[in-house]
Amino acid sequence: MYDLIIIGSGPAGLSAAVYAMRAMLNVLIIEKEAYSGGQIVNTERVDNYLGMYGTSGFDLANAFRGHANSLGVQFMAGDVNGIEDAGTHKVVCLSDDRKLDTRAVLIATGAKHKMLGAPGEEKFKGMGVSYCATCDGAFYRGKTVVCIGGGNVALEDALYLSNLCDKVYLIHRREELRASMDVQDKVKAKENIIFMPYYEVAEICGSDALTEVVIKNNKTNEEQTLPVSGVFVAVGMEPETDFVRGLVDMDEKGYIIAGENCLTSCDGIFVAGDVRTKEVRQVVTAVSDGACAIHFIETFLNKIL
Amino acid sequence: MYDLIIIGSGPAGLSAAVYAMRAMLNVLIIEKEAYSGGQIVNTERVDNYLGMYGTSGFDLANAFRGHANSLGVQFMAGDVNGIEDAGTHKVVCLSDDRKLDTRAVLIATGAKHKMLGAPGEEKFKGMGVSYCATCDGAFYRGKTVVCIGGGNVALEDALYLSNLCDKVYLIHRREELRASMDVQDKVKAKENIIFMPYYEVAEICGSDALTEVVIKNNKTNEEQTLPVSGVFVAVGMEPETDFVRGLVDMDEKGYIIAGENCLTSCDGIFVAGDVRTKEVRQVVTAVSDGACAIHFIETFLNKIL
Repeated sequence: MYDLIIIGSGPAGLSAAVYAMRAMLNVLIIEKEAYSGGQIVNTERVDNYLGMYGTSGFDLANAFRGHANSLGVQFMAGDVNGIEDAGTHKVVCLSDDRKLDTRAVLIATGAKHKMLGAPGEEKFKGMGVSYCATCDGAFYRGKTVVCIGGGNVALEDALYLSNLCDKVYLIHRREELRASMDVQDKVKAKENIIFMPYYEVAEICGSDALTEVVIKNNKTNEEQTLPVSGVFVAVGMEPETDFVRGLVDMDEKGYIIAGENCLTSCDGIFVAGDVRTKEVRQVVTAVSDGACAIHFIETFLNKIL
Repeated sequence: MYDLIIIGSGPAGLSAAVYAMRAMLNVLIIEKEAYSGGQIVNTERVDNYLGMYGTSGFDLANAFRGHANSLGVQFMAGDVNGIEDAGTHKVVCLSDDRKLDTRAVLIATGAKHKMLGAPGEEKFKGMGVSYCATCDGAFYRGKTVVCIGGGNVALEDALYLSNLCDKVYLIHRREELRASMDVQDKVKAKENIIFMPYYEVAEICGSDALTEVVIKNNKTNEEQTLPVSGVFVAVGMEPETDFVRGLVDMDEKGYIIAGENCLTSCDGIFVAGDVRTKEVRQVVTAVSDGACAIHFIETFLNKIL
């Protein structure tokens, strides 16, 4: 019987593990990916985690994992597909049928990239269609690509790609961008980024390799075909919460409803990081959640033990 | 006219400044102390700020300040003694009568050490009575000291002092300690720490130098005189909010009432870090507040500009 099983080893899960070790809890982290760090692994550079200016996402992820390792945190590879409430405790169920008993569970599964849902997207996924410019941009050196989205990630991806590629089309369904002004200014200053507002992707085409993208103006319905080698999708995230649907309350987007105390609607199940309802999803807000969650988990354990 | 004045340069204020610079706000930090970092400056070692395991508080404070410097954050020395609401903007008033106009204010003044209120405390403050073991412990090498309090800080101070001093009395008014179990276990394992529950300090005595402390058992009223050279007080913190009393809503302890969105009861005044009402006061929860506050400050500025 564990005191606590943490599902996910991104910033929230790792921070929670560090606090749990210092609180001397019998804790286990289950991680689905072959690496820790969550989304930041795929981030070129993180400039706003205080004290570690200009660190690559990969190095930051390694520093986070190294911190947990220094304290002796126990990790297990596994894909959690359900949690059962056994009354006195919880049972964490893995896709390979293993079942683990624990007094408390912390869901820190984060969120994953949203797909466009356009024809051809599935066919060319990983072979022309990418959800991570930092990971895959180098394959498109000297070529023409499109980048889709209007947030910070989309514009930062466009900037990154503009340094590698011949030309970058930035496609957004609106004229207003959600990205911060400094990033918008940088994008505007790049001659090889062509901003195309009011366009959506109608189809991603090619026989063996991706060769073109059909885009459609959502005001005029006019269509254009852009000859491109790559499509970078940055239209947001969705939370990884399907495995606890029905067990804890969620909002309409599937985020688990919880305040900064990280308490869910189910006693003994806690939530930290991007996967909970919150306004600001940043590395540091996830790390902070991990610390807060352990405070309330300790209170819960003191109550039941 | 500034977009934002941040009062205080601890983890919350510095993090907010970093986010404000990246959002291209015209921002100024006002700091009262001669150094940045807030309370952590006086912390021997910070082990739970994810990614920076085992950093001294001083080094962590330097890394935080260095991050802000890298982004060109503007600092000003000053003691804020009031904020006026001028309707269209706010006026930040300094004790030297300077007045600064700004569209928004972020209060990140943190909290300061509570005094015991015992006779002799004021007389020997800084000359035998200390509120920071890490800062002053080295002056008491080979001597006998008392440490007062039952929280993490008190017990960590006792541990630190036990490595330097001949003997450490740990005085607490109750038997139960609030400190985490790992720290309690370490204290128990130290032979030269003598835990004295149910005692309070009745008087701190000496002619030129501090020579003894009178302690009183709060169950039996029995008094004892301990011959000591130093008194280390670690009985908690109080928020630095007197300068905005009446302007924003506070709780009974003087913490400014705000949720994780950092909004106070006064439009245009925000609060981040230890000084707001929250359950978990840690370096990372303060740093996280700084990030959240800027998100909501940007929303506020977009509304009024």
